[in-house]
Amino acid sequence: MSPLHLSRRRLFGTAGAGVALAGAGAVAGYGLSGTAGATADGVVPFRGTHQGGIVTPAQDRLHFVALDLTSTDRAAVRDLLARWTAAAERMTAGRETAEGGALPANRYVAPADTGEALGLPPSSLTLTFGVGPGFFDKLGLADRRPAGLAPLPRFQGDRLDPARSGGDLCIQACADDPQVAVHAVRNLVRDGFGVTEVRWSQLGFGRTSSTSTGQATPRNLFGFKDGTNNLKAEEPDLLERHVWVGDEGPEWLRGGSYLVARRIRMHIETWDRSNLDEQQQIIGRDKGEGAPLSGTAEFDVADLAATGPSGPLIPDDSHIRLASEQENGGVRILRRGYNFVDGSDGRGHLDAGLFFVAFVRDPQRQYVPMQRRLARSDALSEYLEHNGSALFAVPPGLADGDDHWGRALLA
Amino acid sequence: MSPLHLSRRRLFGTAGAGVALAGAGAVAGYGLSGTAGATADGVVPFRGTHQGGIVTPAQDRLHFVALDLTSTDRAAVRDLLARWTAAAERMTAGRETAEGGALPANRYVAPADTGEALGLPPSSLTLTFGVGPGFFDKLGLADRRPAGLAPLPRFQGDRLDPARSGGDLCIQACADDPQVAVHAVRNLVRDGFGVTEVRWSQLGFGRTSSTSTGQATPRNLFGFKDGTNNLKAEEPDLLERHVWVGDEGPEWLRGGSYLVARRIRMHIETWDRSNLDEQQQIIGRDKGEGAPLSGTAEFDVADLAATGPSGPLIPDDSHIRLASEQENGGVRILRRGYNFVDGSDGRGHLDAGLFFVAFVRDPQRQYVPMQRRLARSDALSEYLEHNGSALFAVPPGLADGDDHWGRALLA
Ligand code: HEM
Ligand code: HEM
Repeated sequence: MSPLHLSRRRLFGTAGAGVALAGAGAVAGYGLSGTAGATADGVVPFRGTHQGGIVTPAQDRLHFVALDLTSTDRAAVRDLLARWTAAAERMTAGRETAEGGALPANRYVAPADTGEALGLPPSSLTLTFGVGPGFFDKLGLADRRPAGLAPLPRFQGDRLDPARSGGDLCIQACADDPQVAVHAVRNLVRDGFGVTEVRWSQLGFGRTSSTSTGQATPRNLFGFKDGTNNLKAEEPDLLERHVWVGDEGPEWLRGGSYLVARRIRMHIETWDRSNLDEQQQIIGRDKGEGAPLSGTAEFDVADLAATGPSGPLIPDDSHIRLASEQENGGVRILRRGYNFVDGSDGRGHLDAGLFFVAFVRDPQRQYVPMQRRLARSDALSEYLEHNGSALFAVPPGLADGDDHWGRALLA
Repeated sequence: MSPLHLSRRRLFGTAGAGVALAGAGAVAGYGLSGTAGATADGVVPFRGTHQGGIVTPAQDRLHFVALDLTSTDRAAVRDLLARWTAAAERMTAGRETAEGGALPANRYVAPADTGEALGLPPSSLTLTFGVGPGFFDKLGLADRRPAGLAPLPRFQGDRLDPARSGGDLCIQACADDPQVAVHAVRNLVRDGFGVTEVRWSQLGFGRTSSTSTGQATPRNLFGFKDGTNNLKAEEPDLLERHVWVGDEGPEWLRGGSYLVARRIRMHIETWDRSNLDEQQQIIGRDKGEGAPLSGTAEFDVADLAATGPSGPLIPDDSHIRLASEQENGGVRILRRGYNFVDGSDGRGHLDAGLFFVAFVRDPQRQYVPMQRRLARSDALSEYLEHNGSALFAVPPGLADGDDHWGRALLA
């Protein structure tokens, strides 16, 4: 082991110390994976306390894939995870999946890399790996399945399509260039042949959240700024509390997180017919600045108690009130979603919406009660239809020497 | 009319002179719509001899929508085209669909603009408008339907899905930011309510062709450079010959073109199992440089007569031979396609491919025989499945004072 490896190993020696340092690193710009953005050459560090793609400043494009295991052979899965990890580490560094990838010296062999990213820069690619409930069942690991992976309840209004839900494994590819994200997913999918197959996949064309104070807040397809009051990479204490699994979780998941994915169709035609005032009352913020209706500037803290002549300035059934930590017993979540448009719905409309992705320390305590409240009371719900849903446990980042994402889990 | 208007009017006074000047403009960088790229602020001029989005250096992202008329009222259609044209001109300039668009001073009215592009730069947005066969039938204009719009024949291997084919109208939105392209299509679709409805729509995440000598050649999902031997904006004489409708067409179409759209699923799994040599023999070019197999550098002219020990260097069933002008009686086309990945196919694979877009002067003389030859003999066909198809006539660009795309057509 090289001295460099030694020192990085020491840095990540214990989860606690690693996490504390990672927090410091993020602020000081140390470039630890999962807590900082890309280096000047567009490379997000692959190894570190946490996986990349969670608090990494949200890149512009997403390709998300959920896969099912077609094999129950634990050794075959372990092999695949090792191959995936090696390929992922190379690709995030802007390299091909394997040495001599797209253009093998022997032209009578099938190229190891499919080639469509040749010449493209690393583009801040992150690859985030997770396991769903079926992973444990199929591999005879039911005793390792963490409590957090219990099935999500059915929420009011859910119209879930099984073909867009669930999955034994997931890979979230985020990058500033969609071709780089697609290339990564496609090559990992390809490598899984015989062990995994695609269950569903989702492209996101525009990020709908900022996850770093350095990012401008983007807009979702309802035209509102989205991500203003999100958890941010620069808030390590809050991330400890709300995002990273701690001692309560199984050892293999500490420093990891849970990923909740919801494909939310947005009824943009109906929304577009509502007037500006209605829209602002529904969200609880103004459309121009993104300021809470109790304030004037985007980052003003929402004053839920403030009232005007006709009642609370931030209405009782507004989205930001019902999603607020005050109404949710102090619960917060890290949102990291993307806009999508997937052709048309066959009834004359665009099939458009938000591919909602959230990272939480405990989905049952955080996402479930919040979503239950929103589904029941949020004025926004009328304009939404949740038609895809999945939940994954996301292992922590890899220390140097860890040869694959599932090492602690499959040990 | 302002002197500026006068002088631009003069410039575009007659189709012939306009075209010739446009060619000169492109070379000298005059910035005429349809022949030059964006200005420094990312605005592609909206008016000019030709519509933008044809020989405009291909932008990175696409949102294409095909619409059907739900009204047979010619006046209503004319009104819609006037509204569309005004909104399109504003949006390509980086402005909202209408004055006070997303944030009307009176907040009790529905905003005219949906707002998700607020604050985003023009991003080289172009909006290209076309009419399909049904436009003429439904509006009682069958006598104006140009010969070029005759239905495409069924080609060998076609597996066309009616839900991804046809359309009475189309709008092609290209931009460097997908949110800008999506915003434009969505707002035009919205404005069409009551007159048009979405038939199908397609997002393209990465351009697969260069259309200007100033652009690097991108790669398609088979990993090959695509667009090397494409027609280029800098070749006005060739564009005259192969892309722009001339005196042979009806007056309202002169200086316009035809748009052929084909949704081509690419069987990437099968392709990925073929070896590098096979892949190169199928295309007729090498994968690294993109050079013809008869040469060494990308832009070497393919020598179809060159032979090696085992026959022609560029095989008889290779894609570039069968698509070449030599094999097609001098015919060439302008390709302007985009890569797509639309989730998964429900059978464990990604639904990925090429959304092929070509602009031609006469589809029946150019696209049809070329596609017939490729469908029958091209070694590449084995890896492809055409599952969407549409054909549109694309009117010329708007002169100053023209209030809508269909003015000459509906006159
Ligand atoms: C298409 C669906 C949705 C849309 C359009 C939407 C939109 C928004 C907008 C515009 C804001 C205000 C700006 C901000 O702070 O980010 C916001 C805040 C928030 N949203 Fe959503 N949202 C959606 C779904 C959800 C879901 C499913 C959840 C969780 C179950 C959620 C949780 C939150 C939270 C926690 C906040 C911050 C509230 C606060 O200020 O404390 N949202 N959302
Ligand atoms: C998924 C389907 C397709 C793929 C992957 C593909 C790929 C390619 C590649 C790699 C080249 C060589 C580089 C270049 O000059 O651009 C090429 C050239 C070309 N392709 Fe395709 N192509 C496809 C479909 C089509 C179709 C449907 C047509 C027309 C019917 C077409 C017409 C052409 C032409 C005209 C050329 C230039 C040939 C020459 O060098 O003279 N292609 N294509």
